[in-house]
Amino acid sequence: MKPIVPISKFKEGDSIQGFYLCVEKHLRHTRSGDLYLDLILRDRTGQVQGKIWEKVSDFNEKFSSGDAVAIKGEVDIFMDRPQLTVKRINKATVQNYARYGFDPALVVPTANADPNKMWKEITTLIGKIKNPFLKKLCHQIYRVNKDKLMTHPASVSMHHNYRSGFLEHILSMAKMAVRLGPHYRLDTDLVLTGVLLHDIGKLHEIESDYEASFTKEGNLIGHIVIGRDMARATAKTIKKFPKNLLLKVEHIILSHQGKYEWQSPKKPAFKEALLVHLIDVMDSQMNIMDMAMEDDPEKGPFTNRHNYFRIPLFKGENGTE
Amino acid sequence: MKPIVPISKFKEGDSIQGFYLCVEKHLRHTRSGDLYLDLILRDRTGQVQGKIWEKVSDFNEKFSSGDAVAIKGEVDIFMDRPQLTVKRINKATVQNYARYGFDPALVVPTANADPNKMWKEITTLIGKIKNPFLKKLCHQIYRVNKDKLMTHPASVSMHHNYRSGFLEHILSMAKMAVRLGPHYRLDTDLVLTGVLLHDIGKLHEIESDYEASFTKEGNLIGHIVIGRDMARATAKTIKKFPKNLLLKVEHIILSHQGKYEWQSPKKPAFKEALLVHLIDVMDSQMNIMDMAMEDDPEKGPFTNRHNYFRIPLFKGENGTE
Amino acid sequence: MKPIVPISKFKEGDSIQGFYLCVEKHLRHTRSGDLYLDLILRDRTGQVQGKIWEKVSDFNEKFSSGDAVAIKGEVDIFMDRPQLTVKRINKATVQNYARYGFDPALVVPTANADPNKMWKEITTLIGKIKNPFLKKLCHQIYRVNKDKLMTHPASVSMHHNYRSGFLEHILSMAKMAVRLGPHYRLDTDLVLTGVLLHDIGKLHEIESDYEASFTKEGNLIGHIVIGRDMARATAKTIKKFPKNLLLKVEHIILSHQGKYEWQSPKKPAFKEALLVHLIDVMDSQMNIMDMAMEDDPEKGPFTNRHNYFRIPLFKGENGTE
Amino acid sequence: MKPIVPISKFKEGDSIQGFYLCVEKHLRHTRSGDLYLDLILRDRTGQVQGKIWEKVSDFNEKFSSGDAVAIKGEVDIFMDRPQLTVKRINKATVQNYARYGFDPALVVPTANADPNKMWKEITTLIGKIKNPFLKKLCHQIYRVNKDKLMTHPASVSMHHNYRSGFLEHILSMAKMAVRLGPHYRLDTDLVLTGVLLHDIGKLHEIESDYEASFTKEGNLIGHIVIGRDMARATAKTIKKFPKNLLLKVEHIILSHQGKYEWQSPKKPAFKEALLVHLIDVMDSQMNIMDMAMEDDPEKGPFTNRHNYFRIPLFKGENGTE
Amino acid sequence: MKPIVPISKFKEGDSIQGFYLCVEKHLRHTRSGDLYLDLILRDRTGQVQGKIWEKVSDFNEKFSSGDAVAIKGEVDIFMDRPQLTVKRINKATVQNYARYGFDPALVVPTANADPNKMWKEITTLIGKIKNPFLKKLCHQIYRVNKDKLMTHPASVSMHHNYRSGFLEHILSMAKMAVRLGPHYRLDTDLVLTGVLLHDIGKLHEIESDYEASFTKEGNLIGHIVIGRDMARATAKTIKKFPKNLLLKVEHIILSHQGKYEWQSPKKPAFKEALLVHLIDVMDSQMNIMDMAMEDDPEKGPFTNRHNYFRIPLFKGENGTE
Amino acid sequence: MKPIVPISKFKEGDSIQGFYLCVEKHLRHTRSGDLYLDLILRDRTGQVQGKIWEKVSDFNEKFSSGDAVAIKGEVDIFMDRPQLTVKRINKATVQNYARYGFDPALVVPTANADPNKMWKEITTLIGKIKNPFLKKLCHQIYRVNKDKLMTHPASVSMHHNYRSGFLEHILSMAKMAVRLGPHYRLDTDLVLTGVLLHDIGKLHEIESDYEASFTKEGNLIGHIVIGRDMARATAKTIKKFPKNLLLKVEHIILSHQGKYEWQSPKKPAFKEALLVHLIDVMDSQMNIMDMAMEDDPEKGPFTNRHNYFRIPLFKGENGTE
Repeated sequence: MKPIVPISKFKEGDSIQGFYLCVEKHLRHTRSGDLYLDLILRDRTGQVQGKIWEKVSDFNEKFSSGDAVAIKGEVDIFMDRPQLTVKRINKATVQNYARYGFDPALVVPTANADPNKMWKEITTLIGKIKNPFLKKLCHQIYRVNKDKLMTHPASVSMHHNYRSGFLEHILSMAKMAVRLGPHYRLDTDLVLTGVLLHDIGKLHEIESDYEASFTKEGNLIGHIVIGRDMARATAKTIKKFPKNLLLKVEHIILSHQGKYEWQSPKKPAFKEALLVHLIDVMDSQMNIMDMAMEDDPEKGPFTNRHNYFRIPLFKGENGTE
Repeated sequence: MKPIVPISKFKEGDSIQGFYLCVEKHLRHTRSGDLYLDLILRDRTGQVQGKIWEKVSDFNEKFSSGDAVAIKGEVDIFMDRPQLTVKRINKATVQNYARYGFDPALVVPTANADPNKMWKEITTLIGKIKNPFLKKLCHQIYRVNKDKLMTHPASVSMHHNYRSGFLEHILSMAKMAVRLGPHYRLDTDLVLTGVLLHDIGKLHEIESDYEASFTKEGNLIGHIVIGRDMARATAKTIKKFPKNLLLKVEHIILSHQGKYEWQSPKKPAFKEALLVHLIDVMDSQMNIMDMAMEDDPEKGPFTNRHNYFRIPLFKGENGTE
Repeated sequence: MKPIVPISKFKEGDSIQGFYLCVEKHLRHTRSGDLYLDLILRDRTGQVQGKIWEKVSDFNEKFSSGDAVAIKGEVDIFMDRPQLTVKRINKATVQNYARYGFDPALVVPTANADPNKMWKEITTLIGKIKNPFLKKLCHQIYRVNKDKLMTHPASVSMHHNYRSGFLEHILSMAKMAVRLGPHYRLDTDLVLTGVLLHDIGKLHEIESDYEASFTKEGNLIGHIVIGRDMARATAKTIKKFPKNLLLKVEHIILSHQGKYEWQSPKKPAFKEALLVHLIDVMDSQMNIMDMAMEDDPEKGPFTNRHNYFRIPLFKGENGTE
Repeated sequence: MKPIVPISKFKEGDSIQGFYLCVEKHLRHTRSGDLYLDLILRDRTGQVQGKIWEKVSDFNEKFSSGDAVAIKGEVDIFMDRPQLTVKRINKATVQNYARYGFDPALVVPTANADPNKMWKEITTLIGKIKNPFLKKLCHQIYRVNKDKLMTHPASVSMHHNYRSGFLEHILSMAKMAVRLGPHYRLDTDLVLTGVLLHDIGKLHEIESDYEASFTKEGNLIGHIVIGRDMARATAKTIKKFPKNLLLKVEHIILSHQGKYEWQSPKKPAFKEALLVHLIDVMDSQMNIMDMAMEDDPEKGPFTNRHNYFRIPLFKGENGTE
Repeated sequence: MKPIVPISKFKEGDSIQGFYLCVEKHLRHTRSGDLYLDLILRDRTGQVQGKIWEKVSDFNEKFSSGDAVAIKGEVDIFMDRPQLTVKRINKATVQNYARYGFDPALVVPTANADPNKMWKEITTLIGKIKNPFLKKLCHQIYRVNKDKLMTHPASVSMHHNYRSGFLEHILSMAKMAVRLGPHYRLDTDLVLTGVLLHDIGKLHEIESDYEASFTKEGNLIGHIVIGRDMARATAKTIKKFPKNLLLKVEHIILSHQGKYEWQSPKKPAFKEALLVHLIDVMDSQMNIMDMAMEDDPEKGPFTNRHNYFRIPLFKGENGTE
Repeated sequence: MKPIVPISKFKEGDSIQGFYLCVEKHLRHTRSGDLYLDLILRDRTGQVQGKIWEKVSDFNEKFSSGDAVAIKGEVDIFMDRPQLTVKRINKATVQNYARYGFDPALVVPTANADPNKMWKEITTLIGKIKNPFLKKLCHQIYRVNKDKLMTHPASVSMHHNYRSGFLEHILSMAKMAVRLGPHYRLDTDLVLTGVLLHDIGKLHEIESDYEASFTKEGNLIGHIVIGRDMARATAKTIKKFPKNLLLKVEHIILSHQGKYEWQSPKKPAFKEALLVHLIDVMDSQMNIMDMAMEDDPEKGPFTNRHNYFRIPLFKGENGTE
């Protein structure tokens, strides 16, 4: 079996095969009137233009824009940039192509850690919650939504905006919660629950196949209110869930953005709520700086200013000398 | 039956009787060690200090701070200001004192219009909604909450913050809705429903006996989210309530403040939602200016700057000459 | 007479004729040294490149950039996009080309309603003003400026920025004024006058042939102050115009933007002024959302975020299901 | 003739006479029912309470709150603070009391420099304007308004808010204008004219007898627009005043606050306008810091933070050691 | 030895002795002309007025405003409030009065934890820094400033503004640093150093005897720049301190406030700097909410809005029921 | 010797020679696989693309991106724009090419005035400082840094961002300082010193060969703190430099930006500091408007809005008619 060639390795004249995400597909006419397909393909390593000159209508039916595709083709140079002339193409799904090496993680950016391992760590943390109501609440919500949780990004574009970014963000925060809850002598069960559920509405706010986008509920209601609905609806199914405790959980979710300008209808009004907000800010900002440094195209020790922080970030030379 | 004397009419040496709101009550010792009750009393016309020197412990049990009270007493002058020496005092309720002329409207500021008349006008407008789902939704919510609706203020301190202010604000907005909906060729039923329900969460956000204050749910969840819950819960009891229509109603309630800084988690995303927000702004601002002019203590044609608008408002001389 | 072909209907190989707005015109040399004219043409339906290869210097004298032009030509495809090879071209004016079907409304966006009808509605409303001074004031200003008023846009780029947009905006506001004035028990004559005159300075702030732009007075003085000058100068010609009334009209014009940041040197200081400002905000915002939805290129139920409101707007699916 | 005693020199038991500003006057009853007059008196050096126990109704007619008064009386101590028992009192005007030493500058804060000297300096500067139109414009406006100009403050409360503060501010700015105009190679005549006229509307915005307050025109129109009217009206009386030049003068006045938030409807759009604005900012801020240091009650080297700059200002020890 | 009576326990008629902070002292005359001393006294539990009627000039020399004082006296009631008639008074210092039970912690608010224990914990953490340069840097700065560090507050008024508040804040942050450094895979030595030194300039910015106030350097230079000077000056005394490493430490100190508006001349430009800032925000905000809840005078479950967060904070009823 | 041809004079077919700044240089392959060099060249008059088709590897070693280069070549037209085919190219330095007419001022924008003359004027002003400590301080810092001072820009992109812009900005400010210091009766020596040193840190913040960029110290520490270090270090070498005086100089430097948002860690706290800030604002803004007008590409009397002031600037027609 031939090796899979990532876009960043394309060289003029190569015959390649591999899996890519088709982000644009247009049926066009050449000047001589023939049909062809004009594609933009992407994977974790880069982006390239593709053209299909032959069997155009056959191939046109095999895949849509937004699909992962399996491709055989040849690399040309057009206008000083590589371009892929596609010879064979088909929609790639895990069902059909896993045995040929297809993994969605090839075509979209993905969390570094293994989602299964992260899932296990999170469920272990849930298992340690002592308050039986909060433990049940978290367990049920996570269990019911496991499928989505395994691959969901944490946001469309701001931070942890990649496959399994949601799990990565939650796990990082949860680990902090179990340290910082006792540090500040708070109800750690409540802090941890707040962390686990604060963004849970994103499962319905964001539609995430390969490319994340907002759902209708996301646009009109928003993840803050949706998430608090989820917590509330589940708590109602748990017998004798204390009313005051639920109110606190709801408040933590509603206030976790911390500022009205960031669309929280309430600001944190007790310490557990404040801590969940502050942990969220910390983990998001650390991740945003991480990504800003990784994505930066500059060669020197500093990034340019086109990042969240609007300053040149110091990527460093070599640490402590 | 002796006449009821409002505080603004108190004169030195008068023997008076009337109904007042007791806003502060403190049990104190005179220098000689005797107990006395130190009161602050208020009605629609002003405020006065009161003292009870006799039968202190008996009277002390008859009423609490926050109660409306029936009083007989005498007016002195102390430190150049009137003071009431209370001879008899009792808690005033509609049950016991209505026949003596007690009406809560005597002791707290109240909307000008009659609440019963406003209620009737609003229910007439609800009756004209053509969409059967929206009509049922509004009818049920208003019917169930009628008691509170009759006396609730529209806010704790900003606008229409007086007895039956809620009704007054909604009725004014509703009348505009039925004009402006067609003017902009919108779904007037939806605009009217939005107007009727946008602030409905205030019934649970604000606790309003004589003095309005925030409830626990008000502080931790807020009227925007509570109101949307009420609409949603009621809609779920109406058979085949269209999903998209409910989503629109929910969005109108969530976005009616119009700005994130004003605690709306969403900004209006379609025209009916935008219009509800704009009508709300218009009616609130007109009312705020109205009250700012009425409350102003200055004598000249202009108010001072200590108002919402931070400018001297022109109260006018006589119109058009 | 051949039909007029709008740009959106251009197809390769067509011979067309029609009226377009020439928004750019450049005289250039081909590689072989020959002169040609490079044009950008626009109408209500779209935009296209044009070339004139023959009789270049003759045609060059017949029209300028900014003119409406009458064209005969042929549609080619260049770089996958239509391009018009112009065979004949001439400046189009209502005088010369009306009989061939020329109407400025063909080449620039225009209000939906008929300007003549709107004019009539507005003058009817002016006729109903009871205060003789205000009626005279409005009549005179509108009469003197009728020509401009018929076609002026309400702004260069924000709202109602199309032919006769000024009339459309004023008429919409005036209709609200006559409803809302009585609703708030205000001097409706004054509100209506405020509405009619608040933006009157735009007649001199904006130069509007086919494309609107700012005049020197517009840039250095601005429509707010210019408009107040117009009201003042006209009032001085009306015998015994009450001094206080004029002061109020001036204040309404100066304060109608409502906020200092929006270039109003004063904020509304009485209720008629506040209402004019609020009606203006309402009508502008409703129009801005209207246009944002119409101009949006997205296919789904939501617009993109590149609009005044910075959120995805819900264009809807089908109403209430 | 006995000496005039300033309030800061009042000592218990003194018999004094002097001139003071009566800032409050109330007719009251003693506990025994007798009438007395309760006064607050102020001069450049401080403030004191006054009481009139005798011939109350006679004296009551001799002066009003807001008047300067001539007083004879005796100093007591009441509640640990000096209090003046007034024996004789009369309204003080320059006409009647100048020969006894009355000067308005005794009772209100006044510019350090002599207004006559400042006037002369300013007219000399006007005399040096080369452009005949601008020279005439400034001369006429200053000549017509000379009386007011001699005593007007530059603002109600911000900077140069004392008698003849207007002249002081303008003269300081004018001296800078004739230096900085050539420094930046600008039209110095225009800069100087801008400086002389930028705040001229304050003559009608502020009513200033002893205490400055806003006029009706000031509140509803504002000094920026009023000032530009004055320049415009005067220019219209000067034959062949160049249209463009007038436009520039108007723009300088309208834009001199520099920011929309500071109520300028325009921002400076050419260099002379920008410089007038910057000179104004410089002179105002220097004066505000000056006054903040002088008014500060703290003993140490730093003021408190309750000043325009919101920081502790360094009043210094002794300069350079 | 008689017990020490805190101010909150004062009752009419008590003879008391104790240690208090004299926050105001004024020499005054009675109406009869005798001298007396008027005092305001404070301790951890409250505040009271004091009077010295006898041996006034003797006692006047024994202490100053700002001193801790040892007092014997008697409690009266004046105007319904307790007042202390002082019989004997002397300045209290640890040298002279420790054996009578004097401890500065009696008269000013103090951190809960023992400063000696906190000191030990911090030096232990310093001992674990692996980078020899950073370890030496921290050790030297802490050793040299030990005396001040033991009692310094962390700020004048915002957070940890009590005796030993600096140590408390630093220790809390340092414990987080050693957890969160590895959590984010950063240079933990650098994060810990940043935490230890970020506020070190406060030792010279704030003068703290019993009441904290700003020094001249504090007002004119500020703790951010002073602290960075201290780090720099000490590093220069350490042989071969790596230049780049010092630059990073300096940047962390300069950027730790995180925002320009909070007086940081730089924003965090690498991850260790960002984390120090975020830990600082977290610890400060948690402390501010803590104090806001403790200081709140309201009786119900919510505080009033007069706190840093401008919302009612939920002090809670009993947790989870 | 052939004349030097500026880019703005390039015409098709010309053989030219001259000095240009190479701002981009890329080694590329033609479709046929041959190497060529793709250049972007700039001088004071414009920008042009350049190609080197021959002796590619030889020439490639002779210069780098960022160098000034001496070129012989021929002008073609490509895609309707001039393009330079380079025949000979070499790095241009003052050492080697001055005799052929090379001057860095040819290839980068440069102050109008002669740096040597400006230097002399500044040193004359320093010579007039009376305070011996301040005079020595300024002399030493200027003498040591003379080389950099002669060519440094005043900023990377905001104002005076051209060769010798630093000198130009300082000289303009210094001339104002000696006028305005006495005008406001301040310590003019201190104002002048503040002006001379306020931006001195820019010598180390900005790296300026032909194109200015930020240094590592610039990014991590910033010119404000660096400049104050320079003043401080130099003052320490001057015997008996008064401590308080140094503190003032340091404060002036730290506070000269005037606002926290502009990265000043302190705001001006005394009058000399305030005046230095205000002079800086004035000179920067005047320069920014100057450049905005010069750089504007519009033909009419107004610039477009894409400038610092966000308004159309009035470039004028002809002055006063």
